[in-house]
Amino acid sequence: MVSSAHDIEEGLAFTPKFDAEGLVTAVATDAKSGDVLMVAHMNDEALRKTIASGEAWYFSRSRKALWRKGESSGHTQRVVEMRMDCDQDAVWIRVEQTGAACHTGRRSCFYRKVDPDGGGTRLSFVDADRLFDPETVYRK
Amino acid sequence: MVSSAHDIEEGLAFTPKFDAEGLVTAVATDAKSGDVLMVAHMNDEALRKTIASGEAWYFSRSRKALWRKGESSGHTQRVVEMRMDCDQDAVWIRVEQTGAACHTGRRSCFYRKVDPDGGGTRLSFVDADRLFDPETVYRK
Repeated sequence: MVSSAHDIEEGLAFTPKFDAEGLVTAVATDAKSGDVLMVAHMNDEALRKTIASGEAWYFSRSRKALWRKGESSGHTQRVVEMRMDCDQDAVWIRVEQTGAACHTGRRSCFYRKVDPDGGGTRLSFVDADRLFDPETVYRK
Repeated sequence: MVSSAHDIEEGLAFTPKFDAEGLVTAVATDAKSGDVLMVAHMNDEALRKTIASGEAWYFSRSRKALWRKGESSGHTQRVVEMRMDCDQDAVWIRVEQTGAACHTGRRSCFYRKVDPDGGGTRLSFVDADRLFDPETVYRK
């Protein structure tokens, strides 16, 4: 069944629009601060597990594998609310983050600011303190 | 020049990692409320124009075209801060949104909540008031 644009945008049926790889984009924000913690992807199974369990599951494009956020690090995400966007190809989850979201040890993956620098563009660190040492946490 | 994962994650060089279509994911949040307004994409030119102008530019995958946010509707986004994520394939912009971000007339594209409903999953409207009537704004 093909849904019309109107049904997808104005309807209340959950009809995620997966891309050619079977994925939707998932944005996780900190439920308290509103900061974006990470941008990742979910396939159908990750979506269903996230909804059913209330814990964030993703699909890794590089590893081609489903993963529960925090399964290695213990830094899980409890989902406070999940929202779907207008064309149903992106989800936004507001989460309670245990520890740090980023594999580099930072609270958020977005620990660098983009600064115009004359003709070029540079990054600078911001909120870049490490909450854990990735060498220790992922060494197993 | 191929950068190492360490350089990409810990360096201060702006080296966006474009996908096969030449795009990075862009998440726009409201600088005041922290709400996610929209998820879209930027190509190299959209990134450069956004950085240079301080106004959000995107690349539409469906229309295969660069667009300045608000060029049809007047609902522009002034960029307060842009951040890059760890692997440099996603940017987060905190914006001052004029009017509504969503083409359906809502402030945010994420105007529906995902609710587990027994075996199924349903959506429900939340913050779904229309700030404009798309029929009027886009009728040209």
